[in-house]
Amino acid sequence: MSHLVKADELTKFGTSVLLATGVPQADAHLLADSLVTAELWGHSSHGMLRLPWYVERLRSGAMEAVTKSEIVQDNGAIVVVDGHHGIGQTLTMEAVHLGIERARNHGISAVAVRNSNHFGTAAYFTRETAKAGCVAFLATNASPAMAPWGGKQKAIGTNPWSIAAPAGSKGVAVMDIANTAVARGKIYLAAERGQDIPPLWAADENGVPTTDAQKAIHGLILPMAGHKGYVISFMMDVLAGVLTGSNFGSTVAGPYDPTRRSGCGHLLITIDVKSMMSEGEFAERMEALINEIKDIPKADGTDEIFFPGELEDSNTRRLAEAGITIADNTWQSLHKLSTETGVALPTYFNPA
Amino acid sequence: MSHLVKADELTKFGTSVLLATGVPQADAHLLADSLVTAELWGHSSHGMLRLPWYVERLRSGAMEAVTKSEIVQDNGAIVVVDGHHGIGQTLTMEAVHLGIERARNHGISAVAVRNSNHFGTAAYFTRETAKAGCVAFLATNASPAMAPWGGKQKAIGTNPWSIAAPAGSKGVAVMDIANTAVARGKIYLAAERGQDIPPLWAADENGVPTTDAQKAIHGLILPMAGHKGYVISFMMDVLAGVLTGSNFGSTVAGPYDPTRRSGCGHLLITIDVKSMMSEGEFAERMEALINEIKDIPKADGTDEIFFPGELEDSNTRRLAEAGITIADNTWQSLHKLSTETGVALPTYFNPA
Repeated sequence: MSHLVKADELTKFGTSVLLATGVPQADAHLLADSLVTAELWGHSSHGMLRLPWYVERLRSGAMEAVTKSEIVQDNGAIVVVDGHHGIGQTLTMEAVHLGIERARNHGISAVAVRNSNHFGTAAYFTRETAKAGCVAFLATNASPAMAPWGGKQKAIGTNPWSIAAPAGSKGVAVMDIANTAVARGKIYLAAERGQDIPPLWAADENGVPTTDAQKAIHGLILPMAGHKGYVISFMMDVLAGVLTGSNFGSTVAGPYDPTRRSGCGHLLITIDVKSMMSEGEFAERMEALINEIKDIPKADGTDEIFFPGELEDSNTRRLAEAGITIADNTWQSLHKLSTETGVALPTYFNPA
Repeated sequence: MSHLVKADELTKFGTSVLLATGVPQADAHLLADSLVTAELWGHSSHGMLRLPWYVERLRSGAMEAVTKSEIVQDNGAIVVVDGHHGIGQTLTMEAVHLGIERARNHGISAVAVRNSNHFGTAAYFTRETAKAGCVAFLATNASPAMAPWGGKQKAIGTNPWSIAAPAGSKGVAVMDIANTAVARGKIYLAAERGQDIPPLWAADENGVPTTDAQKAIHGLILPMAGHKGYVISFMMDVLAGVLTGSNFGSTVAGPYDPTRRSGCGHLLITIDVKSMMSEGEFAERMEALINEIKDIPKADGTDEIFFPGELEDSNTRRLAEAGITIADNTWQSLHKLSTETGVALPTYFNPA
């Protein structure tokens, strides 16, 4: 059984639950919106199923309800921010605004965030940067999820990263990937839905490949593209953890851990397009690249070729209208939050 | 039949051949060294088999023998260089020096290079940046090698990219990958050696997967990790081609094309580690991450876990001593160059 709900109802619910947990209004709305936006993109793995995780971490104090960031280094084009274990979404959106402002002055900027928390999806932030006329690169580290190549124990996170660019009339082009064969969230979603996972996504705790989502949660996710996924993820940890002064390697705790400080870090690099060429020229060039891609002869079974991020835009238009489907397990966890906080559950949506 | 030669003999030969083709001494040495360094790393796909390609392009004038770069935009932290179709290695090493100098002043810099040529391996340059105490990100675009996801015609290059960082007593940590299931050079090497390629590396010109290296050269290389390789490669084209003002998409010509201008571009981002923390602290943190990785329990059949770039360091130590093995087809092409230019072939190496 699943549940169909309008996006704004979900955002309202999430915001109110977080408000009731001590998070200030603006931050509560931002965090809730980041989850609902992932739902609209079609990435339920990073959607409402995570709301109870955040609430648990807020209740235990592992994540601070009131985010108090501190700039600990500032050279103009380089800013290092200590997040003091506040909300990852709040800290990263602060970094986006800082990064854009500094890129306007210097052409390029880097904002390092240390002692943060899981920020949801990287593309949520790089899209904002791109909408402001800048190219963005954002990397985060994350709790151990894969073994180094040739190892049989987790030490490196999925360490997602995103690149986005403004694309004129096409909106924004954006990629956002985890360096594992599959995002950890997709395994949680399969477990939540009681589904098996495809082979070669993960191994069990003994290192044996498995299709059992529950076993995979306690086992090893395999890197994407073999050793390539390992070396990429290692270097993203260097950028997001080692260089920012945050935790790195096996010392980062994940968002599903209710009690430990996360210690994760992020690195955002922002380039103002105008420092290289006019915004109009850049837009024309992006449109030309996108048009070329979309006009390529299609493989059998393919209706449309998408540029990076276009599928998410298309899903958003569709689901904003049709409503978001919430899996029953997730719905039950939202019901529990509703009972605990006194915030009314979102109302069902009945399509006409 | 293969041929064992000392690295410095190969470099001397390559330098002299390029000198005889009109390339100035320093640039000839740099280009030759970049090829021999790839051999020492164990990546023959990017080694001496490419020397005749460069010579062909120099002879036709597709690549200018005398590189005359021009700074067309300079905001301090952002520099845009027009390479005017000079040598990719020369232009990229210029970008490295510019990038380091500007990062020293601003903490971070971006150098965009347009109208360049194939620069060999990205790690050759990011390692230099890391040795200077900086973190480097370098991306290039390349001639069409993969179809967009769902398409059946090439439009996006392998678009290699590299990240490197200084790693204290461990030297340099560096990743360098192409976004295809396999680097195009590995298919050329297999063809050169008359070997089959593994399944799922490439498709033939009709889109049918093949293990025939010759057919794969005229067909489609598949992206790594499915759609992930596609979206990464697309965005690397945005950074290296669209943003730099160079060619992009299907308009980039490859290094094996003897007559067309390449039009490829590169983007180098350099961060001075000292703008974030002391070099000593960064080195300690890198060593801690590397030590943790190397101490992870090993999977069956694994002797040692390597951090990114360590295997290449290890190969270099071994092959500098033992000599470099040149495949017979490559040797014949070097023999032809020797005849054409009057430069004596490297002498064989007889291990004691």
